[in-house]
Amino acid sequence: MSKSIAILGASGYTGAELVRLIATHPDLRIAALTGERKAGQPMAQVFPFLRHLDLPDLCRIEDVDFSSIDLAFCALPHATSQAVIKDLPRDLKIVDLSADFRLRDPAAYEKWYGKPHAAPDLQREAVYGLTEFYRDEIRAARLVAGTGCNAATGQYILRPLIEAGVIDLDRIILDLKCGVSGAGRAMKENLLHAELSEGTHAYAVGGTHRHLGEFDQEFSALAGRDVHIQFTPHLMPFNRGILATAWLDGDAQAIHKVLHGRYCDESMICVLPFGTTPSTHDVRGSNFVHIGVVGDRVPGRAVVVGALDNLCKGSSGQAIQNANLMLGLEETAGLLGAPIFP
Amino acid sequence: MSKSIAILGASGYTGAELVRLIATHPDLRIAALTGERKAGQPMAQVFPFLRHLDLPDLCRIEDVDFSSIDLAFCALPHATSQAVIKDLPRDLKIVDLSADFRLRDPAAYEKWYGKPHAAPDLQREAVYGLTEFYRDEIRAARLVAGTGCNAATGQYILRPLIEAGVIDLDRIILDLKCGVSGAGRAMKENLLHAELSEGTHAYAVGGTHRHLGEFDQEFSALAGRDVHIQFTPHLMPFNRGILATAWLDGDAQAIHKVLHGRYCDESMICVLPFGTTPSTHDVRGSNFVHIGVVGDRVPGRAVVVGALDNLCKGSSGQAIQNANLMLGLEETAGLLGAPIFP
Amino acid sequence: MSKSIAILGASGYTGAELVRLIATHPDLRIAALTGERKAGQPMAQVFPFLRHLDLPDLCRIEDVDFSSIDLAFCALPHATSQAVIKDLPRDLKIVDLSADFRLRDPAAYEKWYGKPHAAPDLQREAVYGLTEFYRDEIRAARLVAGTGCNAATGQYILRPLIEAGVIDLDRIILDLKCGVSGAGRAMKENLLHAELSEGTHAYAVGGTHRHLGEFDQEFSALAGRDVHIQFTPHLMPFNRGILATAWLDGDAQAIHKVLHGRYCDESMICVLPFGTTPSTHDVRGSNFVHIGVVGDRVPGRAVVVGALDNLCKGSSGQAIQNANLMLGLEETAGLLGAPIFP
Amino acid sequence: MSKSIAILGASGYTGAELVRLIATHPDLRIAALTGERKAGQPMAQVFPFLRHLDLPDLCRIEDVDFSSIDLAFCALPHATSQAVIKDLPRDLKIVDLSADFRLRDPAAYEKWYGKPHAAPDLQREAVYGLTEFYRDEIRAARLVAGTGCNAATGQYILRPLIEAGVIDLDRIILDLKCGVSGAGRAMKENLLHAELSEGTHAYAVGGTHRHLGEFDQEFSALAGRDVHIQFTPHLMPFNRGILATAWLDGDAQAIHKVLHGRYCDESMICVLPFGTTPSTHDVRGSNFVHIGVVGDRVPGRAVVVGALDNLCKGSSGQAIQNANLMLGLEETAGLLGAPIFP
Repeated sequence: MSKSIAILGASGYTGAELVRLIATHPDLRIAALTGERKAGQPMAQVFPFLRHLDLPDLCRIEDVDFSSIDLAFCALPHATSQAVIKDLPRDLKIVDLSADFRLRDPAAYEKWYGKPHAAPDLQREAVYGLTEFYRDEIRAARLVAGTGCNAATGQYILRPLIEAGVIDLDRIILDLKCGVSGAGRAMKENLLHAELSEGTHAYAVGGTHRHLGEFDQEFSALAGRDVHIQFTPHLMPFNRGILATAWLDGDAQAIHKVLHGRYCDESMICVLPFGTTPSTHDVRGSNFVHIGVVGDRVPGRAVVVGALDNLCKGSSGQAIQNANLMLGLEETAGLLGAPIFP
Repeated sequence: MSKSIAILGASGYTGAELVRLIATHPDLRIAALTGERKAGQPMAQVFPFLRHLDLPDLCRIEDVDFSSIDLAFCALPHATSQAVIKDLPRDLKIVDLSADFRLRDPAAYEKWYGKPHAAPDLQREAVYGLTEFYRDEIRAARLVAGTGCNAATGQYILRPLIEAGVIDLDRIILDLKCGVSGAGRAMKENLLHAELSEGTHAYAVGGTHRHLGEFDQEFSALAGRDVHIQFTPHLMPFNRGILATAWLDGDAQAIHKVLHGRYCDESMICVLPFGTTPSTHDVRGSNFVHIGVVGDRVPGRAVVVGALDNLCKGSSGQAIQNANLMLGLEETAGLLGAPIFP
Repeated sequence: MSKSIAILGASGYTGAELVRLIATHPDLRIAALTGERKAGQPMAQVFPFLRHLDLPDLCRIEDVDFSSIDLAFCALPHATSQAVIKDLPRDLKIVDLSADFRLRDPAAYEKWYGKPHAAPDLQREAVYGLTEFYRDEIRAARLVAGTGCNAATGQYILRPLIEAGVIDLDRIILDLKCGVSGAGRAMKENLLHAELSEGTHAYAVGGTHRHLGEFDQEFSALAGRDVHIQFTPHLMPFNRGILATAWLDGDAQAIHKVLHGRYCDESMICVLPFGTTPSTHDVRGSNFVHIGVVGDRVPGRAVVVGALDNLCKGSSGQAIQNANLMLGLEETAGLLGAPIFP
Repeated sequence: MSKSIAILGASGYTGAELVRLIATHPDLRIAALTGERKAGQPMAQVFPFLRHLDLPDLCRIEDVDFSSIDLAFCALPHATSQAVIKDLPRDLKIVDLSADFRLRDPAAYEKWYGKPHAAPDLQREAVYGLTEFYRDEIRAARLVAGTGCNAATGQYILRPLIEAGVIDLDRIILDLKCGVSGAGRAMKENLLHAELSEGTHAYAVGGTHRHLGEFDQEFSALAGRDVHIQFTPHLMPFNRGILATAWLDGDAQAIHKVLHGRYCDESMICVLPFGTTPSTHDVRGSNFVHIGVVGDRVPGRAVVVGALDNLCKGSSGQAIQNANLMLGLEETAGLLGAPIFP
């Protein structure tokens, strides 16, 4: 029997991506869509590409009858999310796509987000949503915190290597190329077509990007010591996709072996043959991750490249994968659609 | 029970799009993929975005055992297609995506394609594949000719109007904006990123585009008299999508009423509320068609705009919709995936 | 001796384009740049691409000493422009890039812009800035109104034909493809990269675009009777360039002859050989106009295509060309830079 | 008096960029343009964006009268260049834009380019064309070898640092984002719009890119020891621009100070205020280089980012800058045009 879903904050890109994916999901049914400023509007007005679907109109959160909802996706802005979830029924299953519950340590949260957390008990309760590494906890969780899309990409290529001890933990450099939809449907000058297309630049250079909080938390826990990677994202003139290029100290063959071994049984993650690297083109619109390893000409150094779709596997697809686990469904249900190319 | 499918010419964009769509089709199974120059290669090498699928390697056409194939899609180049199909088993169901069987009249074929047809008997047998208008013939057909993608877009907005007699048949102007994937995976200078991005131009200006042969055939048959529309395509710096803007003599409200009436029961075609027009963004990667009608400020004139994805509804999606009918399957099976946005 | 220039409203795209062009102009020197909200900021902060230039900081209009200014470019928003210019010294030479002084008839202005004009005497005084057609008036003018960029493109291909009487005045259809910089540096959702790239749509469909006011004024005056063309623009996923495709009733060869004759002595306007059409790629970043003519397969019908760069010849380049005339300089000074390709 | 110029290989992108720049150069005049396969064609046919210029038709190299030529630019393919230059008059001044004369060591040439050099005496004679670092040698040279565009970008940010000894020479990582025009007007599948737009991927991963030969030669000479940097380029979905992100071991403030000191008197190179980084958008179409420095959160590590236009400062603009020196002209003549934005 299909499960009833609410999407809180359905007027942004991750909200729309959830609807897109659920539209062909065999076991999920959208019962409520909220959007505070656009309450009362049909989704076809907010996102005409969803016009063919029979969807409830956008409403306010207070107008949702949560007693009939099996699981709610929260696709609200950071900070708003904790304020909203705090007041939702405490037995409601929730997958949150914001940054609000990713960091377990209240001090770390305050450091990266600039103010104390408004719901520290929920922060403690939340399970980190990187499916392939928290599968059991997610299955049992009530509240799952979706990861940052950059944080997910970096972790897919680095976690197994940190855990296996095949790379120098003090020499991890992550150069990211990020599609612009990761910045959301936001009215910022640098997101205009005229400003962004036909070129690129770095941002949050040198270690100020908030996803570093996630990297620090996860990698340090894995390593049993502090790990502080170097990470600078670059804004790309395309809409979907993250390409992570990691510059590592370690033996490339050993690195490839570890990654291949770790992911050979994972249905969503594909490690390419040694010496080849992925393209964001090949995962676009899908929930798949492609990873490649090449040895550098400098002995003992390796380049590892990972690619995923930030809106799908990096956010809404991940959220559905987690929801599937939380609801006792097939983990990949609704998530096996092929990438779109060209 | 699932049906066995062969795709002849799987190394081009329409071949790849067939694989993408069939990957989540409930009733079709890919049994053979051919590609003459790339025979022996795995599809993951030719199209890495299909890497997650378990697919047969590319082979030569002569190596396909057609006795076990329920239906073959022919995604071969024009002219090649007729030569190949001529030698295929005469009881094999075929959906051809080339231009070879679209024109029923041998003289018209020779006029638009510059030489006599090599398989005139098959030309006579073939059914024109515009699903919503040839549904019964397609259901009964052995050989279906997929329409041109531009021809499909134009016909969706014009056929009902010609049939209903609500527009001046001597004053039909069709301005097309065409995504570049319609030109195929071809090595042409004007298809390079450096030549195509950041600008646009017209091509085949003034009535030399071959899809005019289809327009003439279909519209003249509908009208019971010669109809020669004006049509000029423009190459767009995006990959998928066709936007057709028709400039018509006729009452806009009457036009909207005819289109709405004709398509209100069609699941793949959506007529927008009067006064609004579609965007290719909203049908991208999907099998849907969006159509809008607006009255011009000049009395008695109307603007009708249609949008579809050239690779999907304009080609491979249409082909699957027809195959579904030919195989006795649900017509929209595998074709209800939502567009991808952004 | 070089002339002193002020640019009012230098923080938008047309303001920046003026600076870009003047940077290599032999006879113009930028003495003042204004930007109300960004007053006090260096231009390098507002537009880092101008960092290499030695420019005055942005200031408020009230802080400009106009007594030392030879000519002011007004690149302010519509409606703001008339309020500002009204209070400037009445002997200051001004080229206005807004829509405020394009329409000579107060009633027409109110019809298209929704409220009465605030400076009707200046409206009467202003000369319409389509250089090649108002050269003598511009040379003698104090206040010149830059044309709309769409209006310029359409007029370059249509004015000589209307004047020569070689086309049916009741059958003029203009399909425009417009680069997004024409919409300015504005915070609108549909101008975001994620919304605009990878597709297209029409806007202001059916005759609601304000540039129709200019077409009506100019074409009716030329023809000596009311002329109401049909015109629908389409938003393009590129930054610079307008391609105008005109669908006309008239003899193509005669049309080509008229256009060639009219422009053969114009240095900025190039009529291509009969049967070929232009691309926006080939005028990008330049002040040139390319025009091509093709006969349609329907006898007695022609397709005329024009291309220019909306920010340059359609706006800031045109403004400088007019300023050159007003200041007694060489008309094309600073405007002969080649287009940028690719 | 203006100097007579020949461009050998004028049908490619760097050839066209030379023409574009020379069109507004005060002291250069194009006397001959060659293109073997397109000999006899007017440039306006090969590059319609140059239509407004009065240019000689393309001819064969053998048809050029070199006695009247002051300097020849060679924009021929690698390997072809050495074969051609070998047979040119030995007193003709030449700026070569190919890779043929960049490496001084015959063994290094053979290692990176796979076969022995055909003109080892010319290889010895050639001066490496990185203007700001070989100014005196270039002024006196007869044959100058234009640098690789990636090699130029990397050297602008790294040379002063290596020379000053402020970074760890064994820890230099260079992540490059390269616009596609760098690959030339070549018929390769991965350069098609449909394959390249909307995504990115790495290429020549791990140290196989030929520009490493230049880095090794130059950096080792500077350091007086072997220096082998790590370098991986990424193909970007835009036409012009290279962004180089260098990950370095060294004090960021010291690094900034060195770069600022080195370039403060250079007119084409701009070091941004500490803590800010450049965008390729801001140098597009120009001969300027922008460089920025930021400290990483990991103490003792820095991120340095450089941006230039690969076709201009990375290739044809550099070539003209060198030609200016060789001909005794103002070094920046014809090269001060502002970037184009947006």
